[in-house]
Amino acid sequence: MQSSSVAKGVPYQKDILRDHSLDAANERQHFVEECAGVTLHHVSHFSIDPGSTLGNIESFTGVAQVPLAFAGPLKVNGEHAQGEFLIPLATTEGSLVASYNRGIKLLNGAGGVTSTVTADRMQRAPVFILDSARAARDFATWIQDRITDIRRAAEATSHVARLQRIESYLASRFAYLRFDYTTGDAGGQNMVGRATLAACEWIVANNHAVRSYFLDSQLSSDKKVSYINMLRTRGKRVTAEATIPRALLVEQMHVEPRTLAFWSGVAGVGSHLSGAMNNGLQAVNALAAMFIATGQDVANVAEGSAATGYVEVTPAGDLYVAITLPSLIVATHGGGTHLGTQRECLEVMGCYGTGQVNKLAEIVAGVALAGELSLAAAICTGEWVTAHEKFGRNR
Amino acid sequence: MQSSSVAKGVPYQKDILRDHSLDAANERQHFVEECAGVTLHHVSHFSIDPGSTLGNIESFTGVAQVPLAFAGPLKVNGEHAQGEFLIPLATTEGSLVASYNRGIKLLNGAGGVTSTVTADRMQRAPVFILDSARAARDFATWIQDRITDIRRAAEATSHVARLQRIESYLASRFAYLRFDYTTGDAGGQNMVGRATLAACEWIVANNHAVRSYFLDSQLSSDKKVSYINMLRTRGKRVTAEATIPRALLVEQMHVEPRTLAFWSGVAGVGSHLSGAMNNGLQAVNALAAMFIATGQDVANVAEGSAATGYVEVTPAGDLYVAITLPSLIVATHGGGTHLGTQRECLEVMGCYGTGQVNKLAEIVAGVALAGELSLAAAICTGEWVTAHEKFGRNR
Amino acid sequence: MQSSSVAKGVPYQKDILRDHSLDAANERQHFVEECAGVTLHHVSHFSIDPGSTLGNIESFTGVAQVPLAFAGPLKVNGEHAQGEFLIPLATTEGSLVASYNRGIKLLNGAGGVTSTVTADRMQRAPVFILDSARAARDFATWIQDRITDIRRAAEATSHVARLQRIESYLASRFAYLRFDYTTGDAGGQNMVGRATLAACEWIVANNHAVRSYFLDSQLSSDKKVSYINMLRTRGKRVTAEATIPRALLVEQMHVEPRTLAFWSGVAGVGSHLSGAMNNGLQAVNALAAMFIATGQDVANVAEGSAATGYVEVTPAGDLYVAITLPSLIVATHGGGTHLGTQRECLEVMGCYGTGQVNKLAEIVAGVALAGELSLAAAICTGEWVTAHEKFGRNR
Amino acid sequence: MQSSSVAKGVPYQKDILRDHSLDAANERQHFVEECAGVTLHHVSHFSIDPGSTLGNIESFTGVAQVPLAFAGPLKVNGEHAQGEFLIPLATTEGSLVASYNRGIKLLNGAGGVTSTVTADRMQRAPVFILDSARAARDFATWIQDRITDIRRAAEATSHVARLQRIESYLASRFAYLRFDYTTGDAGGQNMVGRATLAACEWIVANNHAVRSYFLDSQLSSDKKVSYINMLRTRGKRVTAEATIPRALLVEQMHVEPRTLAFWSGVAGVGSHLSGAMNNGLQAVNALAAMFIATGQDVANVAEGSAATGYVEVTPAGDLYVAITLPSLIVATHGGGTHLGTQRECLEVMGCYGTGQVNKLAEIVAGVALAGELSLAAAICTGEWVTAHEKFGRNR
Repeated sequence: MQSSSVAKGVPYQKDILRDHSLDAANERQHFVEECAGVTLHHVSHFSIDPGSTLGNIESFTGVAQVPLAFAGPLKVNGEHAQGEFLIPLATTEGSLVASYNRGIKLLNGAGGVTSTVTADRMQRAPVFILDSARAARDFATWIQDRITDIRRAAEATSHVARLQRIESYLASRFAYLRFDYTTGDAGGQNMVGRATLAACEWIVANNHAVRSYFLDSQLSSDKKVSYINMLRTRGKRVTAEATIPRALLVEQMHVEPRTLAFWSGVAGVGSHLSGAMNNGLQAVNALAAMFIATGQDVANVAEGSAATGYVEVTPAGDLYVAITLPSLIVATHGGGTHLGTQRECLEVMGCYGTGQVNKLAEIVAGVALAGELSLAAAICTGEWVTAHEKFGRNR
Repeated sequence: MQSSSVAKGVPYQKDILRDHSLDAANERQHFVEECAGVTLHHVSHFSIDPGSTLGNIESFTGVAQVPLAFAGPLKVNGEHAQGEFLIPLATTEGSLVASYNRGIKLLNGAGGVTSTVTADRMQRAPVFILDSARAARDFATWIQDRITDIRRAAEATSHVARLQRIESYLASRFAYLRFDYTTGDAGGQNMVGRATLAACEWIVANNHAVRSYFLDSQLSSDKKVSYINMLRTRGKRVTAEATIPRALLVEQMHVEPRTLAFWSGVAGVGSHLSGAMNNGLQAVNALAAMFIATGQDVANVAEGSAATGYVEVTPAGDLYVAITLPSLIVATHGGGTHLGTQRECLEVMGCYGTGQVNKLAEIVAGVALAGELSLAAAICTGEWVTAHEKFGRNR
Repeated sequence: MQSSSVAKGVPYQKDILRDHSLDAANERQHFVEECAGVTLHHVSHFSIDPGSTLGNIESFTGVAQVPLAFAGPLKVNGEHAQGEFLIPLATTEGSLVASYNRGIKLLNGAGGVTSTVTADRMQRAPVFILDSARAARDFATWIQDRITDIRRAAEATSHVARLQRIESYLASRFAYLRFDYTTGDAGGQNMVGRATLAACEWIVANNHAVRSYFLDSQLSSDKKVSYINMLRTRGKRVTAEATIPRALLVEQMHVEPRTLAFWSGVAGVGSHLSGAMNNGLQAVNALAAMFIATGQDVANVAEGSAATGYVEVTPAGDLYVAITLPSLIVATHGGGTHLGTQRECLEVMGCYGTGQVNKLAEIVAGVALAGELSLAAAICTGEWVTAHEKFGRNR
Repeated sequence: MQSSSVAKGVPYQKDILRDHSLDAANERQHFVEECAGVTLHHVSHFSIDPGSTLGNIESFTGVAQVPLAFAGPLKVNGEHAQGEFLIPLATTEGSLVASYNRGIKLLNGAGGVTSTVTADRMQRAPVFILDSARAARDFATWIQDRITDIRRAAEATSHVARLQRIESYLASRFAYLRFDYTTGDAGGQNMVGRATLAACEWIVANNHAVRSYFLDSQLSSDKKVSYINMLRTRGKRVTAEATIPRALLVEQMHVEPRTLAFWSGVAGVGSHLSGAMNNGLQAVNALAAMFIATGQDVANVAEGSAATGYVEVTPAGDLYVAITLPSLIVATHGGGTHLGTQRECLEVMGCYGTGQVNKLAEIVAGVALAGELSLAAAICTGEWVTAHEKFGRNR
């Protein structure tokens, strides 16, 4: 049981990594089956063209089939997403779809969710090594003075990436520069890497105080929840909000606005103690399920899991709720968005291709809010465990 | 472009949520196709039995096909995982598989990665409302005095969940109790929910100072990166470590141990400034790709994205590296582990079913370390952007 | 202006560091006066016996005279502090005394503040270096198995320090042990240092897996705000709470409970974004002023500045407020408590000497709450800047 | 022992709060003495003119006499502080002066400490309530468009405060604006309050989308350690750095650079786990002792306690060390700087009055570094407890 899964350690041949033919995939399947003594019946069953995965994966061997459902439709009052949208959710977690559907129904009853993208930026953060803190400070000043040249160097690498600003963070004799870009409809991590590399090369060619530099310094803070991401935005900053009439909340969720707000306050203290960068509940469930369905870089749910919730009983006694996602990285172009099922899921929302990324961001945030409402209400009424009993047990 | 994706808002019928027949799936596909005007050619193509997804998803409609490759094999020197393991990675991020493969080759050359599970616990954290802080403190004392009764109530709900301890966190007039369980080979979030609900019911039946309680308080801190998770563990706490001989590092990665350690120090300052609970690089990439492949609850990569790295040049001039994942939630039983492709991927690692969860945790941590080495070296040598250029661009 | 303050760099004689005679003090004054060309008219004016400062300072030269006032009296309903207490505040910040007095008047009108010490522990956190994470984990287990021996070794160094427990935090191949002690009426940092040193020496004499150890690892987290301190307590954990009748709040502070609660919610979002371990306002003002007045280790206001506030409009429409200080380090014995003015200030509160430390902790927390109320109300009514204009300008 | 400290609750007369005559002080002393049954022998002994405390304290009653010593002189290579400076330290913590003196001697031996102020800004952060997130975003854009008008309104209130920029942080339907000012040689919290109030009044008079606003939102984050302060600076951002020759370190501190760097790495992991915004040791000890001595707002050691340390063994085998204080709030003018002993202490450093504040900031950071070196070395060699035994015990 605890022994090795393969007979002998034959590593993959490096030269077949980029062969995306069906033959190569089959060859790899047989290799795995032989090594591990397991038949890849399901892994080898797919409808997508292996060649379409070139640039998305090396050593393509097959697929993971992740169960998919559509929740909603959710009514979104965005600037980009306007109307009703079916929501593709790929998950193996029982009760997730039911939970989101429940929240969506509530939001729809309240006239839909209002979503707004309030900021948009993607980063790469190199660090420059100087001789002293004083030299680092002077270097940071020099950078701002030469921003036009640096922008030119960076933007020459891409038709899409646009350098918005460079923020400096100084400590010791190091100058951490956080480059903020807009990246169109792509997630943009790769294009900002290229652009920033070009910018750095220009910098070191023109500034002789720099001793060395690294293209990354942990300050971009890629695929990590961090305060710098929460404060300064990474990807899209989106707020979804709604006012739920008291009567509707009581009828559908069996909870008074006051009770839900009380729970929110008590849980806010718990959240404060816990040291979490999310004072909400389960936003990441929405993100993970939608990211898998729509070909996003799923590891970006790390950043995406940060959220700031807010709950208020209005003077009229209704419930105002909002969730702000400060670092939501989504794409409707590039990455995995063009792959078979992923493209279909984007198309169902009318979100495939260029010019759609803010629309997608608005929808994702709206879905996240639906989940907060559903789970918070379930906690308040004690229906939570019951729901899991009903939907979430295998067999 | 910005208009609604569906003609009119016909919500899903609530009563078909749990019908997992192929007919129901087909009916839902047609509904979506009709509403959205999109043909679900790929979504509807799957080999898994829709009935097998009962308990994993509601309103099963089809699948997301996520490209899958196998990296490695990776040599793991664990207590549970001993030998060489092919690593299933489901991703759409170009260069990810190549990057992990590169790190795996390095680790194998160094004799493999040593992985150790150092703690194992799953939580639910209800909050009890008392009349005052003094009453809350006395209640917390009472809880410890009645731990045997509470354990009995909790454990009666499950053959697997075992209550290890109850931690109290007091603020205002609230007593936040964090129940620590072991949950066998399952992720365990649902079973600890049930168990804690039973415990809470026993508590309120036997303690009359409690005014009310909520089953969740944000202190569990589910699907969130938090300091309480990092300090007190959620899921498995696992450390992967290796000593890479200097010559090997230079030969394969073209970087000196001293350079990599210098970068690590500079990046450590950046990480400290950023306010991230991960001072490493890309652990979440490994987790996301393995979680999708093996049927884990992918949203748990939020907690899983926390990591503490450590790098040291040994007196002999070699490189000691370690990564500690303080909140890795994995399962080899329950959840999505039994589904078609997911089960096959677990079987390839010899990790399917009961008695395997620590083995899987050890392997995941080892893969995470491989990725840290590969990316850190690439940053040090400037190969990073080049690698993305080679592997990560569509078309 | 930017030149050196001393003619030539004659360092203090190391051998007079501990001479606490008046002559030595005079000699040092003359040295400073001569070096710097400044007459120490005020610094040399003091009533305390220089000899009394032995153990509190080296090279005693004179005093800083910090303006002192007494606010209150504050009515405290503690377990230890019961009745009305005049509050000594040493400060140079205009409006601070007035602000606290205002909050105290409000609390008194509401029947006083209820304070409760809910935990008490002081730490030292050594780190042990092992060969591997596995060895570190096994070492941590061994520590718990030998807790009786370790406690004996630790407690042999002190009549006061009592070892409550040892918490283990594992990462890489390091075992961070956080020793929790009670330390009677002293702050206790020094006595737990001695005790833990003895414990460590016993450990390394009896466990041969340990490669080396350091007595401190940053995990005690001395004089730092940290999540471990906030979660696990450092010093006293104290909650002060009160319910302010609506009519009283409106009459005295000119603000409705609802308005103050709304501000608290909005500010809670701000606090969440900011990444502060204090969602309240100015607790540290109370601590700094009382710490200086009463001979506490003033640097401990770093830990002390953490706080969790909570505000709620009760069903009756009144305002429930609470503040929890998770790491309040105070002493009524040892340290600077016996010095002239410091002892007098403690005596005014009936808090000098042994058996008084919880009483002092309760009072400090009550004062902190007074300040939260006063400032929050001022922000809500726009009186804040006005108050500073009135009290806070020199000349 | 637990009874009230005063016979009956006679609150201070509000109308004598601002009477700073000696008679008023005497009257208050008698009031306290009578209420509490304690003779204020030492509190009533002071040389400062009570009238000089107008604007620094209300209800002036006497002084706290805090023991004072001078460490050093410390050689500082700043842009503003150049030469040797005697360091006033007011403390009751035994061994503190000796520890700093030890570090100072080491720094002097290495040619002194190099200090640099890399940023300077003081904040007030009001929050504006809008109808929706979209309105909040548009409001934030409007603010940047009207920055000239807003600056004019803000700066009209002060000859000193200058508005550098306004940063927007958006969440829910709230716009948190962080106003960054320079404030000359004053700490500046009050002047930026006045200036921002004027700016806010201009804003609400000219923007009709705003529903209401509060002058503070917790995002300034006054007297709190926070990530926003650490990232964006509050007060002065200062780095002190030095390279200590190996031979000197070994001779004076009995520790190898490599050992100290190893400890720093291990402690860095501890710090990362702890969730502290200071990965160093005891910077706050320097700050508290210097702040009391020089009339700073002592509560600002909360912000000041944040620090980022960095340690490196140079290629030559020496030790490069640096500490960055991201939120050091100091003044040489205004506040308590003009009071008797406080002014003398500033004068000893040549830091009293206008044009001196960066000089003081440089010196404080240099002293902080001295303490880091001394304590880190003591931990590495095991001399730490011994030092406390020698200097830190009363009696």
